[in-house]
Amino acid sequence: MLKLKIISVGKTKEEWLDSAIQEYVKRLKPTLTCEFVWTKNSEQLLQLAEKEPLCVSLDPNGALMNSEQFAHFVQNQFEKGGSRLTLIIGGAEGLPTKLKQSTSLISLSPLTLTHQLTRLVLMEQIYRAFEIIKGTKYHK
Amino acid sequence: MLKLKIISVGKTKEEWLDSAIQEYVKRLKPTLTCEFVWTKNSEQLLQLAEKEPLCVSLDPNGALMNSEQFAHFVQNQFEKGGSRLTLIIGGAEGLPTKLKQSTSLISLSPLTLTHQLTRLVLMEQIYRAFEIIKGTKYHK
Repeated sequence: MLKLKIISVGKTKEEWLDSAIQEYVKRLKPTLTCEFVWTKNSEQLLQLAEKEPLCVSLDPNGALMNSEQFAHFVQNQFEKGGSRLTLIIGGAEGLPTKLKQSTSLISLSPLTLTHQLTRLVLMEQIYRAFEIIKGTKYHK
Repeated sequence: MLKLKIISVGKTKEEWLDSAIQEYVKRLKPTLTCEFVWTKNSEQLLQLAEKEPLCVSLDPNGALMNSEQFAHFVQNQFEKGGSRLTLIIGGAEGLPTKLKQSTSLISLSPLTLTHQLTRLVLMEQIYRAFEIIKGTKYHK
């Protein structure tokens, strides 16, 4: 079983977001377990990230990929991390410099998205990634 | 008052999506009115689009922009269209060829998003665009 951890700054209480994200968590259950960790600030984010074996961070200057490329990227990262992968979403002030230097950086869009939308788009792409790898029709 | 129309194929019933989109519709109310039109298929989409004075379509091969560029693009389009703008989101089979040729094409991300997420990201960016134009702190 693969283990995905998403660490982000600031918990949000939007009900619509929870219900949308939980739908993807449910669909991914046979493939991977998802853990969401919220930190109070960037310092705490950095502390927790440094304990993780393999982190990938979201950053506006990160690599832009299409969904097929993202699927292969995610698959490679899980292999590299021994079935574990941690994704980092920075706070409003952006990613700590140390994480910009020490982790792989990816970007979901050249547009600036809210943290809520970033989390949702990320979960949908993770789900889409495994559908692409499995070769189902979801992504067509 | 600006008038935005979004025409897309296939109505979806996700409650979380409605509630998230309505939040942006409400916030945009002092600036513009939003009308959502759903069509049964691509033929109907094309018919309705052809009646509109100015359409911009979402397409995987469309121009990628950051949020500032998108804000200026939207502002220009509203000026060009006499305060009216119609945005077109194609169905699962993509945009009708005629619209690919006759309208400006934009893309929200190199990633393939669900239609639901496309609508939500689009509405958030429209809201963000006017906050950028107004110079508020929302987009910082």
